[in-house]
This record gives sequence, structure tokens and C-alpha cells, in this order.
Amino acid sequence: MQKKAVVLYSGGLDSTTCLAIARDEGYAPYAMSFSYGQRHRQELEVARRNARPMGALDHLVVEFDLRTMGGSALTSEIEVPKGGVEEDQIPVTYVPARNTIFLSFALGWAETLGAFDIFIGVNALDYSGYPDCRPEFIAAFETMANLATKAGVEGEGCLKIRTPLISLSKAEIIRKGLSLGVDYGLTHSCYDPAEDGAACGLCDSCRLRLKGFAEVGLADPIRYRQG
Amino acid sequence: MQKKAVVLYSGGLDSTTCLAIARDEGYAPYAMSFSYGQRHRQELEVARRNARPMGALDHLVVEFDLRTMGGSALTSEIEVPKGGVEEDQIPVTYVPARNTIFLSFALGWAETLGAFDIFIGVNALDYSGYPDCRPEFIAAFETMANLATKAGVEGEGCLKIRTPLISLSKAEIIRKGLSLGVDYGLTHSCYDPAEDGAACGLCDSCRLRLKGFAEVGLADPIRYRQG
Repeated sequence: MQKKAVVLYSGGLDSTTCLAIARDEGYAPYAMSFSYGQRHRQELEVARRNARPMGALDHLVVEFDLRTMGGSALTSEIEVPKGGVEEDQIPVTYVPARNTIFLSFALGWAETLGAFDIFIGVNALDYSGYPDCRPEFIAAFETMANLATKAGVEGEGCLKIRTPLISLSKAEIIRKGLSLGVDYGLTHSCYDPAEDGAACGLCDSCRLRLKGFAEVGLADPIRYRQG
Repeated sequence: MQKKAVVLYSGGLDSTTCLAIARDEGYAPYAMSFSYGQRHRQELEVARRNARPMGALDHLVVEFDLRTMGGSALTSEIEVPKGGVEEDQIPVTYVPARNTIFLSFALGWAETLGAFDIFIGVNALDYSGYPDCRPEFIAAFETMANLATKAGVEGEGCLKIRTPLISLSKAEIIRKGLSLGVDYGLTHSCYDPAEDGAACGLCDSCRLRLKGFAEVGLADPIRYRQG
């Protein structure tokens, strides 16, 4: 039987590539998304539409509301910055403990499914300002996860947090995905899309994506806001 | 200014005692509860009613649904066992990754509040079968938490997971709570209460509670089902 893996999947460029990598490595991928009060709710529609076409055997959307806790431009009234990527500080788009919460739910689902691999598309290069995108965080989560679950106690298997994108540049991620047949026209990345879904082209996430496609020498297939 | 602490609070005997201890240690306690599809939803009503009277400055109920993931008698159709506490195995009432998920949300709220202490009423004596009630799990979570957040990266402070009940017997917990003025008539513990809120007296949680009060030499002030 094919080994199962839980793949954190937002419908974005990184997590879609991550899903393709899990499938390419021979896993049966179970995609997990989160409706957490994010302002860019179109990402959920994209995720719902594309999870199975992208190869997921099942797609679970966990709903909760991080807005009640406040503290981030992605979930509250703080404005999404459009002035360019700043270095050496934690961006206002950082959501407190978000990856910890996401990985914790993935851990619960993995345990129920009998999966021992969790894929997450974190990237330490472009998101160096996010504490929960660093390799040392991922390693510590993995250690904790093996103590938190039956797998660890009963020694059924060892739980692994897999981060295939962690040290890749955006261009390398795109090349990898293209080699696996990913249609990037079916992904999104914008933190602040227009009503019709067009990307803003100015937020950190759009800038990184556009730069990546430019480096690969291809046009980004998604739509951007005009003017 | 009083230091803030997030206290995981279900309205039960253990977490209520934990809240009293946090207050007694001089913290301003922020109580956090979870509506996660548990069958014994009366615990949430108890928590909502009692959090502030018990001394919490604020009470946040985070809602999500663990039933979609399955795997536990507390959230699915598996029957709650009433035959007595079994040793040396993980009980069916164990909810996959529950404490990891709870602590992750607490971590997010702590970061937003500027709190560096999270209290959780886990107990390694009575719940030795639950992997996520063991001291080694708590220690690993704390290590991870300090890498996951701004606190860890910017060195603002060190995040602590506080487990004042971890090595106490139920009788010792009750004595401690009574010394701090806890009214145990306003707490609940049953995994499978009647419609009117009466405890079953037979599930693991009721058995441990009744045994604790018997050891202290007091009658448990809550109502139990007749006959």
C-alpha cells in the first residue's frame, strides 16, 4: 500500500509544489487547508477547487478564527505592506504561531490516518523574518511531535516533518514544480487580491513570485491587477 | 504591571485549580477554552459561566471541529468506557494531538497579549496513558515554542509552559484548590454527563475525581446521576 502523507496546502505556489513533490516521492497525499479568518479568502476557493486535480486523495479544510487573537496584517485591520520586502525584521504579515497551529492539526490528522510524514512548504530564504519558517523551528516541532503522539510512545514509526522547499529560491521552486507538471496558472499567492481574484503585484508575496518567474525567464500565468 | 498568563481552562477540576494557582502566583490570568466537537459540551457552558468569577481577566473560546479528523471516543461515536481505569495503554478517550493543538493556540494568544507563561493542568499520574500529558512532551513543546515566536527570535523573554499539577495526585490537587478557595461545586469532570448536567460517576474522569474526594475525606459537591 502507498504510504500516506499529510500536505499543508493553501493553493499557493509553494504548497502546490510541495504537494507535487510528495506525490512524486510516491506518497498518497492528503491535503489540509485552513480557514482561519485570513483576509485573502480566495486562497481557500483555489485550494478547494484544485486539491484533488493536483493529486490529493482527500482534502480537509479546518475552520477556526485567528482574528479573535489579533496581531497580524493577514487577519486584522493592519494594512498589508506594499513597499517591498524588508530585511531583518518580523513582517506585520506574520501570524502569531500560525505554522505551529497548522502543523498541530496536521499532526492530529496524520495520527488518525496512520501517516508518518507531514509536508509543509516553508521557505527559509524568502521568509527569513518568520520565526516559524526556520529549520530549527521545524526540527523542534518534529521532536515534540514524536513525544506528543501514539507513534512516538508505541514506537509504531517516526513522525517526520518534510520541508522540501526550505532552502530553495523561488526560481528553483518554480523550476522544480514545472518539471513535475505543476500548472502555476491554477495557483495564487497574493496577500491582498482584488474582488475578481487578480493579484495586486505589490505585496511581499506577489513580489517574490514575480521575481521568481522573471529569474526562470517565464511570464507568470496568473492575472495581475491592471494599472 | 501584573504579568499576564494564558491559562488553558475547560471549567473542570484540574484546569480550575490551575487558574487559581496562576492567580495565586500573582499573574493576571487569561482563560482559553476550546469548542472542538467534544461530546460533553456542557463543559463549555461551565467554562463560559465561571471563567471570570474564578478570576480570569478575559476568556477566549476558540472553535474548531476535531470530529472531521475522527479517532477518539471524546469526539466520535466510539463509546466512552465505564469499566474502570485501565493501565499501560493509550485510552480511547485520547484525542490525537489535542494538547499540542490547545497549546499552539495558547502560544498564539500569549504572543499577541505579550504573555510569557502558559498554564496547563496536565497530570502525568492519572493520565500516564496520554502521550501529551508527559513532562517530556511539555519540555519539548516549550523548546519548540521559543523557536516559533518573536519572543524566541527577538529575545524579548522566555516562554514557559507551566504545569503545576503534573506530579500531584487528585487528592493533592483538590487540597491545593481548597486552600486557594476554589469552589469545586462550580467545576465538572464527566466525559459523558446526562442532559441535566449530572455526572455519570463511571467514566475514567468521574472515577478519578470521586477517588480524589474520598482520599481527602470530603463529599464531591457536584451532582451525580442516580441509580
